[in-house]
Amino acid sequence: MSYPVALQKIILFLRKFPGVGKKTAERFAFQIISWKNSDLLAFGDLLKSIQNDLLTCPTCKALFDREKCPFCDSETRDSSSVCVVASPKDVFSIESTGIYNGLYHVLPGLLSPIDHFGPNELHLAELKKRIDIACSKEVILAFDSTIEGDTTALFLKRELNKFGISVSRLAMGMPMGSSLDFLDEGTLSRAFSSRLPV
Amino acid sequence: MSYPVALQKIILFLRKFPGVGKKTAERFAFQIISWKNSDLLAFGDLLKSIQNDLLTCPTCKALFDREKCPFCDSETRDSSSVCVVASPKDVFSIESTGIYNGLYHVLPGLLSPIDHFGPNELHLAELKKRIDIACSKEVILAFDSTIEGDTTALFLKRELNKFGISVSRLAMGMPMGSSLDFLDEGTLSRAFSSRLPV
Repeated sequence: MSYPVALQKIILFLRKFPGVGKKTAERFAFQIISWKNSDLLAFGDLLKSIQNDLLTCPTCKALFDREKCPFCDSETRDSSSVCVVASPKDVFSIESTGIYNGLYHVLPGLLSPIDHFGPNELHLAELKKRIDIACSKEVILAFDSTIEGDTTALFLKRELNKFGISVSRLAMGMPMGSSLDFLDEGTLSRAFSSRLPV
Repeated sequence: MSYPVALQKIILFLRKFPGVGKKTAERFAFQIISWKNSDLLAFGDLLKSIQNDLLTCPTCKALFDREKCPFCDSETRDSSSVCVVASPKDVFSIESTGIYNGLYHVLPGLLSPIDHFGPNELHLAELKKRIDIACSKEVILAFDSTIEGDTTALFLKRELNKFGISVSRLAMGMPMGSSLDFLDEGTLSRAFSSRLPV
């Protein structure tokens, strides 16, 4: 006997989540049907209106729910540096550190031949135009430490070098609180070669 | 800067899923807002109507979306055995094996003092009444192999013994395709002591 049709449909949606396979989606679906009906109604309404509730800045592509972009339309942000990220979520991660007060630029993704995401998909002209207009002096690339992140960083570095501005990337090394025992060799050798004076 | 309010609310709902913490819920939420709006509307509607689309059999508490319970109201199922499970999901798991053709009884949960789920919450009278009416000869307990499952099985065995029917439990041993290397000691010793003639 297969699951009721409505349940099957819910399972199909839940399988879209990153890292969620058939078994996990089934567990999630049975959790959902055990929720109070008021929760189901509220969650359903949220999903139906989320795209109207969230705004994307036409300039930097950051997500927000106020009238103005908290970065591009702010007078307290330092326009001399632009932090380039690959997802709107990364903006929130960096903001939560409180260490950065410049502008952002959210790329549509990272270069990935296997996903047919090539240089054209990066919409590089927009980034170049922003750097030009804001007369930025520094571009900080904050990408995942993956093949895709590395490739995109190298590509952007080459493309942005002609602007005569500094292009930097997040440091790589030991994560805070980590133990040498559990570091992979790549991270350990990177931390070793990038060692800093105490 | 914290997430937009609507996004925060979605994250709170996603954290209700089993094993989903803050970070995973955030990843899921950002995946959700990247969906096509038609998908969001469809998923929202599904959630809002799921409790109306699914029916629970008043007798065995199994879930279905037809007019009649596929077990209690079927003439081809063998009423001489009742398989007792702790969640409607388990019914689908057992049905998918095709090995069982008897009736089911879904308990509201497993005994768990820590969750204040005691013997009264099992609604044992309903199970006893069903066994009486159907003149069942066998009760199969299909519970998780956990402390809660073991406790509930022992408790039910004692309670059902007075009916003079056989009470059995799913066999414990090596999972199919498993390797001795990776078996935990409990499973290995159980498989050893329950060894079967080849």
